[in-house]
Amino acid sequence: MAKESAYTAAGVNIEAKNQIIAEMGAAVRSTYGPEVLHGHGSFGGLYDAGRLKGMRGPVLVASTDGVGTKTMVAAALGSYETLGWDIVNHCVNDILVQGAEPLFFLDYVAAPALDPQAIVAIVRGIAGACRAAGCALLGGETAEMPQVYAPGQMDLVGTIVGLVEREAIIDGAGIAPGDVLIGLPSSGLHTNGFSLVRRLFPPESFGRYTELLGRPLGQALVEPHRSYLPHFRALRGAVRIKGMAHITGGGFRDNIPRILPAGTGVVIRRQTWEVPPLFQLIQQVGQVEAEEMYHVFNMGIGMVVVVAPQEAEAALAALEGEGRIIGQVVPWSTGERVLLE
Amino acid sequence: MAKESAYTAAGVNIEAKNQIIAEMGAAVRSTYGPEVLHGHGSFGGLYDAGRLKGMRGPVLVASTDGVGTKTMVAAALGSYETLGWDIVNHCVNDILVQGAEPLFFLDYVAAPALDPQAIVAIVRGIAGACRAAGCALLGGETAEMPQVYAPGQMDLVGTIVGLVEREAIIDGAGIAPGDVLIGLPSSGLHTNGFSLVRRLFPPESFGRYTELLGRPLGQALVEPHRSYLPHFRALRGAVRIKGMAHITGGGFRDNIPRILPAGTGVVIRRQTWEVPPLFQLIQQVGQVEAEEMYHVFNMGIGMVVVVAPQEAEAALAALEGEGRIIGQVVPWSTGERVLLE
Repeated sequence: MAKESAYTAAGVNIEAKNQIIAEMGAAVRSTYGPEVLHGHGSFGGLYDAGRLKGMRGPVLVASTDGVGTKTMVAAALGSYETLGWDIVNHCVNDILVQGAEPLFFLDYVAAPALDPQAIVAIVRGIAGACRAAGCALLGGETAEMPQVYAPGQMDLVGTIVGLVEREAIIDGAGIAPGDVLIGLPSSGLHTNGFSLVRRLFPPESFGRYTELLGRPLGQALVEPHRSYLPHFRALRGAVRIKGMAHITGGGFRDNIPRILPAGTGVVIRRQTWEVPPLFQLIQQVGQVEAEEMYHVFNMGIGMVVVVAPQEAEAALAALEGEGRIIGQVVPWSTGERVLLE
Repeated sequence: MAKESAYTAAGVNIEAKNQIIAEMGAAVRSTYGPEVLHGHGSFGGLYDAGRLKGMRGPVLVASTDGVGTKTMVAAALGSYETLGWDIVNHCVNDILVQGAEPLFFLDYVAAPALDPQAIVAIVRGIAGACRAAGCALLGGETAEMPQVYAPGQMDLVGTIVGLVEREAIIDGAGIAPGDVLIGLPSSGLHTNGFSLVRRLFPPESFGRYTELLGRPLGQALVEPHRSYLPHFRALRGAVRIKGMAHITGGGFRDNIPRILPAGTGVVIRRQTWEVPPLFQLIQQVGQVEAEEMYHVFNMGIGMVVVVAPQEAEAALAALEGEGRIIGQVVPWSTGERVLLE
């Protein structure tokens, strides 16, 4: 309808929404394999799960997450496509730690007013990351909610569903003292710690070239969350992965204990890797205590993999230089389960 | 940590978040059947899909949606548990229209500051609706994002994954002129039209007893979105369901055409059901044109089911008084595909 309806006057522009849906179509369809029977546009997306019939014990693994206030930094820089990569890769990592390969992904984007260009860019990023992960973008929703969202803000949420053979589930149960912690490098802040970052750096500083980083600060901040799917596949073919911890909100101290069996803790040797300049900059500017830094940020290690000591060398070889030993599993009874040395 | 950390000062209270997670545990576990191998707390939820092996052609159906600005009305009334029912039932309805039974659900709740009582109430509602639908609450995320969300506001998003035999997918392909439209009664506004409603009724009016409604206006507004799973099951056992349309945002005109094959339209006879008083009130107060009302609201019909004319009687019998014939499928070439008579 060309006329402004009562509903449009109330703040929801249905026409703008329809335009966005049409523009997103091509990006979405680029993620479809033959398993997708019906995608965006129908009430629910249909995914042919016929291949589960050939599995011994098919288990679905699902996770929902948001990118948090990284949206605020990205919006200030107009860097929307990177946000799409962020949410997909975050979700991919959250299920691969349990041994699952992604099947499909659904997104939710909400804002006080829909900016078609921003949303199309986000979906382009989501579709790119889905293709890279062999994952179908099966559905999604865009919501325009003036008054719920602050002006100029937005939220981006993703849900992933993956698949694993029951006997191949990685749950940390076999982890024992003496096992080795292998750290995989992060690509930046990933999607955590942005509340603190925004307190330290005003949007005006994002465009500033920063010597320590070799690029503008904002560019370093929005660097997309990387996917560890290639690392996972390489490791899975070479060694027995005893456990994997995705280093997200809460850093090392909150995420590693999630996979440790009773009676075990870990010692992490901080001198085994160089903390990337971006984290050093944050620590300096904010005068943040080191302990706090490791509790909020990934500090350059976005994924921790636990293997038996006799398999450490094979694991490192499989990672082709993208991993290093950063600590080990120790007996534990009281105190901090994650000791930072 | 008892001490206020730099991170807490930046606006994210990790302790409050952990407390909420603990309190939600009991509600979440109440939705678990033996299929849930690992739920809330792990990185991703694990769902045993072994039963798919016994199916001829298992197809997964997934959908993501939010409750929109119904959150604003619910927040003004402190009616959080109903919101939990809203989001689950909305999602259940979105996949049952394709013939799917729900397997599992994941929620996402975000607010500028987490109110533990509100979030626990929401999760209690989600868990209640999940139990009613035989659906596991497999995972979820709570996000605290000051600055992204306006003060006192929140968003609630859900993702559902369900299952259907390929040959039992309902897609509307067999719909033909002469087929009958059966309308199932809604329980109220469900989760649509709240932007318009909030423009007409200020929060101060929510507590006011309204003669026409027989209860306070706010109570009628937050009435939870009902699930049509019982109706679906009853119909499926009695007749061939040719198509189902969930009447959500965009009302009859946007939702019914989504299931119609080329060359068909529908005629809906408005005099076949009585529009509930709440919709009459909205129309009167807002002086909204009738056509607009049917484009925004469900007008008392939350689900439309299409069956062959010779099966209409059996369908109505199966629905035990919870359905009525509201129109029929007609040949279509140009103009409105949904004609309201």
